[in-house]
Amino acid sequence: MVYVGIDLGGTNIAVGAVSEAGSILAEAGCKTLASRPYQAIIKDMAELVQKVIRKAHVTEDEVKAIGIGIPGVADDQGMVFNCTNLGWVNVPLRAEMQKYIHKPVLIDNDANCAALAESVAGVSVGCKSSVFITLGTGVGGGIIVNGKLWSGGHGRAGEIGHMCLVPDGVPCTCGRNGCVERYCSATALIRTAKQECYSFPNTAILKKAGGDINRVNAKLVIDAAKEGDASALRVFNSFVKYLAMTINDITAFFDPDIIVLGGGVSYAGDFLLNSVAELLPRYQMFKALPLPKLALAKLGNEAGIVGAAMLGK
Amino acid sequence: MVYVGIDLGGTNIAVGAVSEAGSILAEAGCKTLASRPYQAIIKDMAELVQKVIRKAHVTEDEVKAIGIGIPGVADDQGMVFNCTNLGWVNVPLRAEMQKYIHKPVLIDNDANCAALAESVAGVSVGCKSSVFITLGTGVGGGIIVNGKLWSGGHGRAGEIGHMCLVPDGVPCTCGRNGCVERYCSATALIRTAKQECYSFPNTAILKKAGGDINRVNAKLVIDAAKEGDASALRVFNSFVKYLAMTINDITAFFDPDIIVLGGGVSYAGDFLLNSVAELLPRYQMFKALPLPKLALAKLGNEAGIVGAAMLGK
Repeated sequence: MVYVGIDLGGTNIAVGAVSEAGSILAEAGCKTLASRPYQAIIKDMAELVQKVIRKAHVTEDEVKAIGIGIPGVADDQGMVFNCTNLGWVNVPLRAEMQKYIHKPVLIDNDANCAALAESVAGVSVGCKSSVFITLGTGVGGGIIVNGKLWSGGHGRAGEIGHMCLVPDGVPCTCGRNGCVERYCSATALIRTAKQECYSFPNTAILKKAGGDINRVNAKLVIDAAKEGDASALRVFNSFVKYLAMTINDITAFFDPDIIVLGGGVSYAGDFLLNSVAELLPRYQMFKALPLPKLALAKLGNEAGIVGAAMLGK
Repeated sequence: MVYVGIDLGGTNIAVGAVSEAGSILAEAGCKTLASRPYQAIIKDMAELVQKVIRKAHVTEDEVKAIGIGIPGVADDQGMVFNCTNLGWVNVPLRAEMQKYIHKPVLIDNDANCAALAESVAGVSVGCKSSVFITLGTGVGGGIIVNGKLWSGGHGRAGEIGHMCLVPDGVPCTCGRNGCVERYCSATALIRTAKQECYSFPNTAILKKAGGDINRVNAKLVIDAAKEGDASALRVFNSFVKYLAMTINDITAFFDPDIIVLGGGVSYAGDFLLNSVAELLPRYQMFKALPLPKLALAKLGNEAGIVGAAMLGK
């Protein structure tokens, strides 16, 4: 059988036909143009599904299901509760999609899909349990238990970015204070880097940004830290400290076999992985207990399509 | 079939024969006398198993398995990694038990067993997922996913007491700082109550303790809070605040259908439940998202035996 996965983003829609083993057989895509009515966006998605089925040289009978990864939360009726980047509130995504395609339509959060993709075809293949942490503009996550995606009792599990790290800490967009996302996202890295630039204008961060503080981004901060710049290292080490604390909270509660780091900041690669691994024992409960394995995500951008497709498996 | 459950505590061993539906058919028990060699303790456990089988009027053939709930962590080989209250380190519990009884022996943490018991025969029956939080001398917990107990990749899931609430907060026995257990246990309630007694010697807490600060216990603090004593309310409200923060962290990460409160402090009943429910929205991410149901544990002391027995189901 073949599975179709749709990665619905605020900017692009990417669709792929995916094999049982999680390989992409054919791809197609278009701009989301999110300001359009949802009906027009979903019509485009349906047309892209037909296109990848043709490109993969399979018949519609061979397609088992359509999976959709969304940057938001859906209920088990396929109703999208909210999708901030798209401005969607209570959009009947499954019902609308099934006007065009008479196949099961499964919907889940995009970080959940990435977690599933890594466990089917990525770094956590063969692990009974895993927690995927995406370190991007925000912080998201996904949970795999007994080889299956756990989306929660209300479709909103894995919101690692909104666990609280610092009581009464930095205000968060979610209405709480001190959320993980305010300390462990690319956005947080940039915020604290800019503060360093004001205090220490000689930092390599600012040099790399051509002296323009508005051009500071996460990659540039990480590059400066790798080169040993003191300000960049302070920013990076603070990020790593909060990430180690988060990982230890997840481990205390859930004890997964493996924790996978993905998203933009994970492109820091072994520099990130080794820094976190070095700091984990400091924030660990009962030092003698085993820690989960720690790894970088393997699938990159493909994870969205593959994970969405695997929802139907 | 019948299932035998053993609740191994630091003070008592309680053993029961349990039906498919989670009812106790017969019980027996003895003192643990924990300072004895582990072989002697396990021999007593095996004899109690034989005793409850006889008392329940079933044959050994009708017994499907023996489950043991321990105040510690075991691996999937039945090796007890550590059990602080018993002074056990690397005790081959399953192997030793199988010298006496030729049945499958399943071992898990006592809080995990209580979580399972509530989901089979208690307040969370029929819920696809639940998180049980035990508020006692320490804080423990158990996780049910898709109706099954999740013990973690290394047998140590549900250590809710050692999630971090306050970075650089009160030092914990586990080696971290600011753990949930230091703010949401009976021990924490007593510690902060004693501080109040020093600052406000007219508090009803101290009166109830006959003026002797060493007689302050959790029940007495809760009783004084119920009566409206200002100091006791400050102590209780601080406890509730930290518990609400913990519940919101669990919800953000795991999104269970229901959260069950058990252990000594949960005897505060609706006074606790209503106080937590009132405060939850303040610490909630994205106020519009659904919260899990909140409930008090139903099984009390029986949970240990029933949950251990249900490990074999």
